[in-house]
Amino acid sequence: MSAVPAIPSTPSSQSSDVTVIGLGPMGRALAAAFLNAGLRVTIWNRTAGRDADLVTQGATGAATAAEAAAASPLTVVSLVNYDASDAVLRAEPVATALKNRALVNLTADTPDRARSTADWATAHGIRYLDGAVMTPTTTIGTPHGVFIVSGPADLHAEARPVLAALGGTLTHLGEDIGRAAAYDMALLDIFWTATSGYAHAMALAKAEGITARELAPFARGIGAILPDHFAELADDFDDGTHSGTINPITSAVSSMAHIVHAAESHGIDSSVLRTAEGQVRRAIALGHGEDGPSRIAELIGRH
Amino acid sequence: MSAVPAIPSTPSSQSSDVTVIGLGPMGRALAAAFLNAGLRVTIWNRTAGRDADLVTQGATGAATAAEAAAASPLTVVSLVNYDASDAVLRAEPVATALKNRALVNLTADTPDRARSTADWATAHGIRYLDGAVMTPTTTIGTPHGVFIVSGPADLHAEARPVLAALGGTLTHLGEDIGRAAAYDMALLDIFWTATSGYAHAMALAKAEGITARELAPFARGIGAILPDHFAELADDFDDGTHSGTINPITSAVSSMAHIVHAAESHGIDSSVLRTAEGQVRRAIALGHGEDGPSRIAELIGRH
Repeated sequence: MSAVPAIPSTPSSQSSDVTVIGLGPMGRALAAAFLNAGLRVTIWNRTAGRDADLVTQGATGAATAAEAAAASPLTVVSLVNYDASDAVLRAEPVATALKNRALVNLTADTPDRARSTADWATAHGIRYLDGAVMTPTTTIGTPHGVFIVSGPADLHAEARPVLAALGGTLTHLGEDIGRAAAYDMALLDIFWTATSGYAHAMALAKAEGITARELAPFARGIGAILPDHFAELADDFDDGTHSGTINPITSAVSSMAHIVHAAESHGIDSSVLRTAEGQVRRAIALGHGEDGPSRIAELIGRH
Repeated sequence: MSAVPAIPSTPSSQSSDVTVIGLGPMGRALAAAFLNAGLRVTIWNRTAGRDADLVTQGATGAATAAEAAAASPLTVVSLVNYDASDAVLRAEPVATALKNRALVNLTADTPDRARSTADWATAHGIRYLDGAVMTPTTTIGTPHGVFIVSGPADLHAEARPVLAALGGTLTHLGEDIGRAAAYDMALLDIFWTATSGYAHAMALAKAEGITARELAPFARGIGAILPDHFAELADDFDDGTHSGTINPITSAVSSMAHIVHAAESHGIDSSVLRTAEGQVRRAIALGHGEDGPSRIAELIGRH
């Protein structure tokens, strides 16, 4: 690696306030929010043609990822996973362009990948924050967005004014670079498992002659009780109390068995709920039937 | 069966406004709400000794289920499932006591069991509504309770003033007696699958050094976005649009794979999420990768 910058075509270094790499639905929402906040924004996407309307809104489309990275003191990356982000960032011209600059990777992946990226960034003199966006693209630029980052506190303090343009709440979870990815995984785990359950519920309702729109107001109601339910289970889990006063798992397994029975009698693939039921049955067989569902978290986890 | 009532010891027929059979956590909450509303309440539980504090609050403890049923024009049942409720209600003295009276079964089970109970009730001259409580016991008697019933509209109109004492929202879903049970199953499907996902998320967070209480504010945030997410998926499912603009399932499968990988590397049983991931992979293999998660509901369902 040469110490001499190898970026021939970007004399107007730092002509932008922020660069966005990756123009999927999330990257596009991030770039639009930066633009709406009045920032100068440079954008780049591997597949060309995704930047036209953002350029119309005032963004500068870069010809290469290296050119994009060289245009701003801060680059925000939003790609499908770290295989994709490595393929872009670890190309030598890009790494060279990022030297001494700030890189915030909002791509979702595992803590290990975040740590590996931090090692690579350190080796290349790149200042690195790992983060995640915990809310849908439609919340970006509104008070409802939720963003988490981890990594050096001083870098977070420096990047925060620019990231504030995204709206919502930005939380620095600490200096452990893997921490944001760990939160992200745990939260997406809740989201996608709940979504899977909802898909099954819609299929079951349909087989029973109930449209998803008829079910929706009540499904909203179930969604509305989950935040408090989650908070109570967190206390039960951290304290090891596993209280079953409100929702003993013997009651859960009875419901699960009814649902699997009814759904399978309609020919619906119920393998997800069947698997969850199996975990609850195991907990009951181990003598925990009077406990609440936080006991499941203990039993499936590390011992 | 004799046409002559065989209840020797209850001359003060209908000495109460409402009877509650089953004093588990939900039955106890129902009885307490009726008492707090100023109603005269008779209670009975198979296992003795659960009624002491309710009696202190003014309830009348019946010696037998038949005596309890004979004490009120309306009996509300809350038991763990219909095996339990059949064991109580279908005993001849109880069925005889319920003749010409209203029975509201809030026990959760399948639509088939509701229909079978309605047939039994008709054969015994019992006026029957099937229903369910969709919110935790702590919401009973508050504006946050959600109750659903199905069955004869005139019986619902008659029972409604007494059931209104439970607080919250009571919805009559129609005359099809199985409809409340079908809604109940679909909604519990969402609740328990989401709970299973949350248990896995807490186990994963713990393995990553994050306490459940640290995760909880963000888990609440995920819970808070689910109602709108559910409503959007309902539109996608009913209309067959399966829009993947916000959450394409290719993005879901990438997240799921990361989470399963990380959780299993910590020794956490990830079979539920692995199964859900398998359903998404199948959808992608069938050419639906750009669709949203409502496509999963279609693929796992009846065709």
